Amino acid sequence: MSRNTAILLVTCPDQRGLVAAVAEFLYRHGANILHADQHVDIAAGLFFMRVEWSLAGFDMSAADFATAFAPLAEKHALHWRLEESDRRQRVAIFASRYDHCLADLLYRHRAGELYCDIPLVISNHEDTRQLVEFYDVPFHLIEVSPEGKTEAEAAQLALLEQNGVDLIVLARYMQILGPRFVARYPARIINIHHSFLPAFLGARPYHRAFERGVKIIGATSHYVTDTLDEGPIIEQDVIRVSHRDQVENLIQKGRDVEKMVLSRAVRWHLEHRILAYGNKTVVFD
Amino acid sequence: MSRNTAILLVTCPDQRGLVAAVAEFLYRHGANILHADQHVDIAAGLFFMRVEWSLAGFDMSAADFATAFAPLAEKHALHWRLEESDRRQRVAIFASRYDHCLADLLYRHRAGELYCDIPLVISNHEDTRQLVEFYDVPFHLIEVSPEGKTEAEAAQLALLEQNGVDLIVLARYMQILGPRFVARYPARIINIHHSFLPAFLGARPYHRAFERGVKIIGATSHYVTDTLDEGPIIEQDVIRVSHRDQVENLIQKGRDVEKMVLSRAVRWHLEHRILAYGNKTVVFD
Amino acid sequence: MSRNTAILLVTCPDQRGLVAAVAEFLYRHGANILHADQHVDIAAGLFFMRVEWSLAGFDMSAADFATAFAPLAEKHALHWRLEESDRRQRVAIFASRYDHCLADLLYRHRAGELYCDIPLVISNHEDTRQLVEFYDVPFHLIEVSPEGKTEAEAAQLALLEQNGVDLIVLARYMQILGPRFVARYPARIINIHHSFLPAFLGARPYHRAFERGVKIIGATSHYVTDTLDEGPIIEQDVIRVSHRDQVENLIQKGRDVEKMVLSRAVRWHLEHRILAYGNKTVVFD
Amino acid sequence: MSRNTAILLVTCPDQRGLVAAVAEFLYRHGANILHADQHVDIAAGLFFMRVEWSLAGFDMSAADFATAFAPLAEKHALHWRLEESDRRQRVAIFASRYDHCLADLLYRHRAGELYCDIPLVISNHEDTRQLVEFYDVPFHLIEVSPEGKTEAEAAQLALLEQNGVDLIVLARYMQILGPRFVARYPARIINIHHSFLPAFLGARPYHRAFERGVKIIGATSHYVTDTLDEGPIIEQDVIRVSHRDQVENLIQKGRDVEKMVLSRAVRWHLEHRILAYGNKTVVFD
Repeated sequence: MSRNTAILLVTCPDQRGLVAAVAEFLYRHGANILHADQHVDIAAGLFFMRVEWSLAGFDMSAADFATAFAPLAEKHALHWRLEESDRRQRVAIFASRYDHCLADLLYRHRAGELYCDIPLVISNHEDTRQLVEFYDVPFHLIEVSPEGKTEAEAAQLALLEQNGVDLIVLARYMQILGPRFVARYPARIINIHHSFLPAFLGARPYHRAFERGVKIIGATSHYVTDTLDEGPIIEQDVIRVSHRDQVENLIQKGRDVEKMVLSRAVRWHLEHRILAYGNKTVVFD
Repeated sequence: MSRNTAILLVTCPDQRGLVAAVAEFLYRHGANILHADQHVDIAAGLFFMRVEWSLAGFDMSAADFATAFAPLAEKHALHWRLEESDRRQRVAIFASRYDHCLADLLYRHRAGELYCDIPLVISNHEDTRQLVEFYDVPFHLIEVSPEGKTEAEAAQLALLEQNGVDLIVLARYMQILGPRFVARYPARIINIHHSFLPAFLGARPYHRAFERGVKIIGATSHYVTDTLDEGPIIEQDVIRVSHRDQVENLIQKGRDVEKMVLSRAVRWHLEHRILAYGNKTVVFD
Repeated sequence: MSRNTAILLVTCPDQRGLVAAVAEFLYRHGANILHADQHVDIAAGLFFMRVEWSLAGFDMSAADFATAFAPLAEKHALHWRLEESDRRQRVAIFASRYDHCLADLLYRHRAGELYCDIPLVISNHEDTRQLVEFYDVPFHLIEVSPEGKTEAEAAQLALLEQNGVDLIVLARYMQILGPRFVARYPARIINIHHSFLPAFLGARPYHRAFERGVKIIGATSHYVTDTLDEGPIIEQDVIRVSHRDQVENLIQKGRDVEKMVLSRAVRWHLEHRILAYGNKTVVFD
Repeated sequence: MSRNTAILLVTCPDQRGLVAAVAEFLYRHGANILHADQHVDIAAGLFFMRVEWSLAGFDMSAADFATAFAPLAEKHALHWRLEESDRRQRVAIFASRYDHCLADLLYRHRAGELYCDIPLVISNHEDTRQLVEFYDVPFHLIEVSPEGKTEAEAAQLALLEQNGVDLIVLARYMQILGPRFVARYPARIINIHHSFLPAFLGARPYHRAFERGVKIIGATSHYVTDTLDEGPIIEQDVIRVSHRDQVENLIQKGRDVEKMVLSRAVRWHLEHRILAYGNKTVVFD
């Protein structure tokens, strides 16, 4: 995959001529479009577009782009952002005791599957320090108690600021983030929930799946919003179980699904493929 | 598949020596066991077994079996039943306006996938009469209005009695059966729900799935109990959807899943593979 | 889905400005683009595009389009075609003795899942006549013997001409079509092969899958070319099997996959989503 | 999962009374059967059984079992083995440069998913030493050149002997083992092949899958025999791809499937669930 590309993401009221206007603008500035995809949510009257082009031959810097693009953006009421695919985003992983998602993300990062920097892991338990440090990532222990939650979040936010973090990944982090924390990173906190939402919202989904006698279990990655487990779903996947599976088998099978579903969400976010709106996502492929 | 076999299904408190006792009994009477499978629900302390044997060389009739097996059954507190695989069960299909599950079952029946007789289809709408009659199955229209539900169910039950029905399949029958109806056919009414339960219990699941922005939809077949959509789950399956799918696409994709999931449940029931207990099932493969 | 739309499909050497040129052309003529998708095969240096727009407000007929679009097409060496989504294509189904794919397609057609006309079914066996006629489709028996194959194909081609057929679907038609027949309908004959190609090319794939002891079986829909089972793959899907499955179970499970995989290919073809090139396809979603 | 259990695996010519004979024997010696499963390969005339029972109350040691069971085994021509589930098998992993399967197995082992000891990793490259040592597993570099293959295998075999290895896992080990090596560990060497066999036997399956334009890729774990990629298949799984996926995307998506498929095979082998015969397996669930 070439890294010398720019990606433009657009959300706006649906209207005639949007593709032409954007494509023509890009062409005029020497862009060679590699991928262009768009989507219309008819009920919501919204248009979404993702265009990726080669920067070889493109006649503007990112800074100039904003100025040059402004008239077009204003005319069509575009909500837009420009991303450069060679910029490594900075990702903080929040972990707790369960380390399967954490280990999976760290391995994938080292294997080159996730194009980003991971300047820190924050955990409320010591357990995963050795693993994190094996991957040469700084490990920060911030304990979270019910009465000390506000200070803990303040400490976390300070670390995130210092490290210029773009994206927070909750890798089975078992704490609920406060509304002020969430508001600081809109559509930039990804959580993994260990059920196929909206089934088994809340705590202990595998136990409840076992009690209900389901034949399929799943996992859901989503952006975190103020309402628990209700944020825009990015990805879901499932695995088959049977009457032979005890709760511990569900938990073990589920781990594999959780890892896949979380890592896909993170990769797509890093590739600027996701547009969140309301409690939904558009995921461009 | 040989049809000259008998199947013994057993549920009882878990205890030592059950497999030996049953296997020894069968061997003594000349049974050649083709399949034997068992399961223990540790939490519930229950033992489940399915044994299938060739009747060639078996020295008893089904009637004699009950007498001969009684002492063993009593000693171990077995809850059991004996089925002969060459007996065609009698299946009634209940339908309404949506005909995809109905058409699928009728086609599979004629293609030999479902070993049973279908003496009748009962519907509350005329729409599917032609289809049903093409497959040479008698079609009965019984309209169901809110105030006439009791009489309608009485008429349905009378037809079921007359036709010696063993199993009722609700093929997207859009009515809720009353408790007295349900009580007459315990673990013998199979419904298809158009979501992966317990997600989207109740009405209009595809619409709600669309609104929630899920990335996977599913269907669930289950035995009908008094509590709506809460009966023991027999089978579930899913299909992937994306932001491109409108409600009508979900409905169309879902139809394929519904057909598969319902037909599997019916086939397994006809093959005496399912033991229901509490709100769960054991499905022997 | 609105039917008042036009779809432009383009294949050409990859080059700068293609999206802009096409989008600008369409915008200038009043097109409101509903979907636009493109793909670049980097190794082959080829660009593929599918654009769909609302005809409400579009200022040209299909006939005028060709003239107006010609200069642009010539300049960029576009290979293109224009389709109108409200035109019902005319589909001939070829069948033999196995009727599951045929029954599935006829049912889906009547249920509105396949937007097309089916003016005829051609079979080399009488067996499916009743089924076909139930769906009010003319049934033509053309027997095919090894020595009479040339005449049989001539008769088939005559019927296809008379009926203005756009697409031929081989619904488990067990004959191999001759090269002259195939040449008449390039990328317009869809076959279903009952294995996940390239595994088990050729005859009796389920038997060979059973002998090999595979844990997954599948089916493949593809365009027919001169080389048996080597045409561009449109869709594949699979289903899990186990040591318990005998050949007849593979065949039964496989039927469900075949039906799904063939019907998806037909639907995507009818929706003008497929571009075939070499032995590959681009399937726009 | 209780570890105080014994597992008896039986293969023999199919005959009447086998289940009864074995179950009765076990019951007589105080076994409480937890799982019993059997299978008949009708075409081959073979019977397979797996029985697991609690050792609490069982009146014999493993050594005594052989003596006591001998008459029964002889009478029915049983090929059998007894395993104790609390015995940790000793597993050697062979690796090369690709480390995803290796890292996955080491992680799962530490996480408690694989009940075994891993006394050594043997690799023909230094690359994975650090990873292996992080998991406290001794790493042995044995370089393999075309002319030095015999000595390399001798060195490998010596290490395996010294370490009392029960099972060898080829975790994307890119060398072909010689027939004498293979003969020393019949049905005790598990390989992962990066295609859904028998498709793309041999080298570079992802490249060939890309060239063929398939819509699904897969992976296969199997026991190693003398014939390359032809050993008994243990497990297969697949993942969907599209025209958008380049070879490197197939490779990346494939890695996830390889990891899952290999780790399942290893776990099932460790749980004594697999019986290999001819080029097939029975996998008891």
